[in-house]
Amino acid sequence: MKCTPDIDLRDVEEMNINIDPIQAAGRLTADAMKAVIAYGDGYSVCDNCRKPFRLDYIEKPPIATFHDDLAAFVGMDEARVVPGARRGFQAVAGTYVQKGDPVILTALSHYTEFIAVENAGGIPHEIPKDTNNIIRADAAAERIEEVTRASGRPPVLLFIDHVDYQFGNLHEVQEIARVAHGYDIPVLLNGAYTVGTMPVDGKALGVDFVVGSGHKSMAAPAPSGVLATTAERAEEVFRTTQIKGDLTGRTFGIKEVEMMGCTLMGVTLMGMMASFPHVRARVGRWDEELANARIVLDALRSIEGTVVKSEMPRRHTLTRVDTSASFDRIAETHKKRGFFLSSALNKKGIVGVIPGATKVWKFNTYGISRAQAEYVAAAYIEIAEENGLPVVSP
Amino acid sequence: MKCTPDIDLRDVEEMNINIDPIQAAGRLTADAMKAVIAYGDGYSVCDNCRKPFRLDYIEKPPIATFHDDLAAFVGMDEARVVPGARRGFQAVAGTYVQKGDPVILTALSHYTEFIAVENAGGIPHEIPKDTNNIIRADAAAERIEEVTRASGRPPVLLFIDHVDYQFGNLHEVQEIARVAHGYDIPVLLNGAYTVGTMPVDGKALGVDFVVGSGHKSMAAPAPSGVLATTAERAEEVFRTTQIKGDLTGRTFGIKEVEMMGCTLMGVTLMGMMASFPHVRARVGRWDEELANARIVLDALRSIEGTVVKSEMPRRHTLTRVDTSASFDRIAETHKKRGFFLSSALNKKGIVGVIPGATKVWKFNTYGISRAQAEYVAAAYIEIAEENGLPVVSP
Repeated sequence: MKCTPDIDLRDVEEMNINIDPIQAAGRLTADAMKAVIAYGDGYSVCDNCRKPFRLDYIEKPPIATFHDDLAAFVGMDEARVVPGARRGFQAVAGTYVQKGDPVILTALSHYTEFIAVENAGGIPHEIPKDTNNIIRADAAAERIEEVTRASGRPPVLLFIDHVDYQFGNLHEVQEIARVAHGYDIPVLLNGAYTVGTMPVDGKALGVDFVVGSGHKSMAAPAPSGVLATTAERAEEVFRTTQIKGDLTGRTFGIKEVEMMGCTLMGVTLMGMMASFPHVRARVGRWDEELANARIVLDALRSIEGTVVKSEMPRRHTLTRVDTSASFDRIAETHKKRGFFLSSALNKKGIVGVIPGATKVWKFNTYGISRAQAEYVAAAYIEIAEENGLPVVSP
Repeated sequence: MKCTPDIDLRDVEEMNINIDPIQAAGRLTADAMKAVIAYGDGYSVCDNCRKPFRLDYIEKPPIATFHDDLAAFVGMDEARVVPGARRGFQAVAGTYVQKGDPVILTALSHYTEFIAVENAGGIPHEIPKDTNNIIRADAAAERIEEVTRASGRPPVLLFIDHVDYQFGNLHEVQEIARVAHGYDIPVLLNGAYTVGTMPVDGKALGVDFVVGSGHKSMAAPAPSGVLATTAERAEEVFRTTQIKGDLTGRTFGIKEVEMMGCTLMGVTLMGMMASFPHVRARVGRWDEELANARIVLDALRSIEGTVVKSEMPRRHTLTRVDTSASFDRIAETHKKRGFFLSSALNKKGIVGVIPGATKVWKFNTYGISRAQAEYVAAAYIEIAEENGLPVVSP
């Protein structure tokens, strides 16, 4: 069946186990699916928009309450929904970064943080990762000192990924925030892989901004996300418009400059809201998710030559492995070359790994059941054995 | 029935005739609804994302082709999808407007254009409207001259609404673009009310940018929209990232700075794509839409005291009327006060007019059938007659 003659129905999630690194935690809940069907139309949430005419004030559907809940969920004072985490980065960079300003990112920062800095005209300076691919507070302190000396002034903003996209590692966020605040540098936590999957408390971490992704980790449609902050910083990043029509004298109420007025006026917000009670509950089951990840990882580790590139023990379901000395050896002579692995997985109903990748690759088991994790684990071992790779119980 | 205990199912469009000014042309088509169900999950369009890893290069679903079709649809060379027209304004303002730069808008510019200018640090200067609420080229020329003299340099960007949000009037776009180009000022056409409802040819109009809204006028979910431009301007507004990690040496491929990388990675884009063949066809039936609008407007005009504030004859389905001397006279003594009108309409299954408004208000008949238009027309006349307002055949 098809949506239109040109567009196939998508049934990837229904027909397979999807371990795609970015898709795993963005699958809709059943409630979100209902909301998506009910609120598909364009400006569907605007039926009852009344003065002061701003998305986060709408009471029916309960968008105002949702904003309060969202702020509380990440331990901050104020929250707004945004069209993707990247638009949260853009709003914060747009507020604090002027052309030529030094900005601190890290060796593991996501590209969208870099682009937010570029967009604002800032100069990026990375905190190096240590040999275990962790961003540490002492490295942050050193880099801030160095950049401050070289630039003649402290950096204006620091980005730190709660869990990075490359290794799925956790970094020294709390300690880094403390260091940054010693220089009065506001700190943005990129929680694209954590807000909605594991517990996140921005106040406890001591950060100024928590940014999350609806479509990556909150079981919401794209593009969606959250930008949350403290009461103090809210006045800056959520400042309202001051511009005025020079002839008409028109002003534009309480619309917020960095939000460009209203943000998610329909299906994306409603999907996010409908999933929210489930998302709030699931972060409490993070241990089960880690246990499932461990089942798959243990299987991979039992295949001789496989090296885990992420920190161990795992504290996130996104993991990077190096199979240059296991699966890639098969690829060298297999008639399907590197595609043998993804092809064999696909045949077993496992999707989401890059076709052709047999050296260094990532997977994310978030949201699969224990039975599915065991199935994936068994699948990898079977593929290894079928291809003559030694499997040793760990 | 409910989506969740807190969220009601929305059935406004199924149970009523909705003449809301901003919602009328954003209702999904049936094909878009199918796509929304199939592509609700977060990053649903990324299943087959391959090098060079950018949304507009994805071939399955046919996103790449859609981008070509979209550019052709508005008569431009290049197009990108954006999370709402406002994000298109932001991208263009971010490219051309530096702090303190003079920018030309009009007395009828939408607030999101102003906010885009404010966000970029520009200084707004409005072209006045004439007594018929039309923005004319001679007024544009005069204002550009005046602003150039006062600022010591020409404005860096000009925004013109194809059809404005207040009156639904068409303005002298082609002539204004010609004037602006005489000063080398790039011209952005805000087609939020026209792209997807009536034919729009950016090249014929001579503009540099055409911005449209998916959720306002292209039967697409929110937030969605299009930013289209010429081959020449594409190099500027769609410039690719140049930023580099100073320690890691990382660069970020062909991601575009003003797009913040990828934009609509799921349901919004797929809804837009599934509706597109229908949208492309429906702009050819614009005359029928105008005829339906006329049926309703003629009824309103037959109610003594009603004044049409929009240009006549109507060239758009969004219309502003002043019923201070008709319906508002009833409101003065009616026990429901100003709410009598919206209440009476709602009882007849007509929604989308601001509750309580009986003086100056707007409606948009886009997308309703002829029979529905006749029903709405009859409803207004009945309400007038029931309340003792004289009705005179025009």
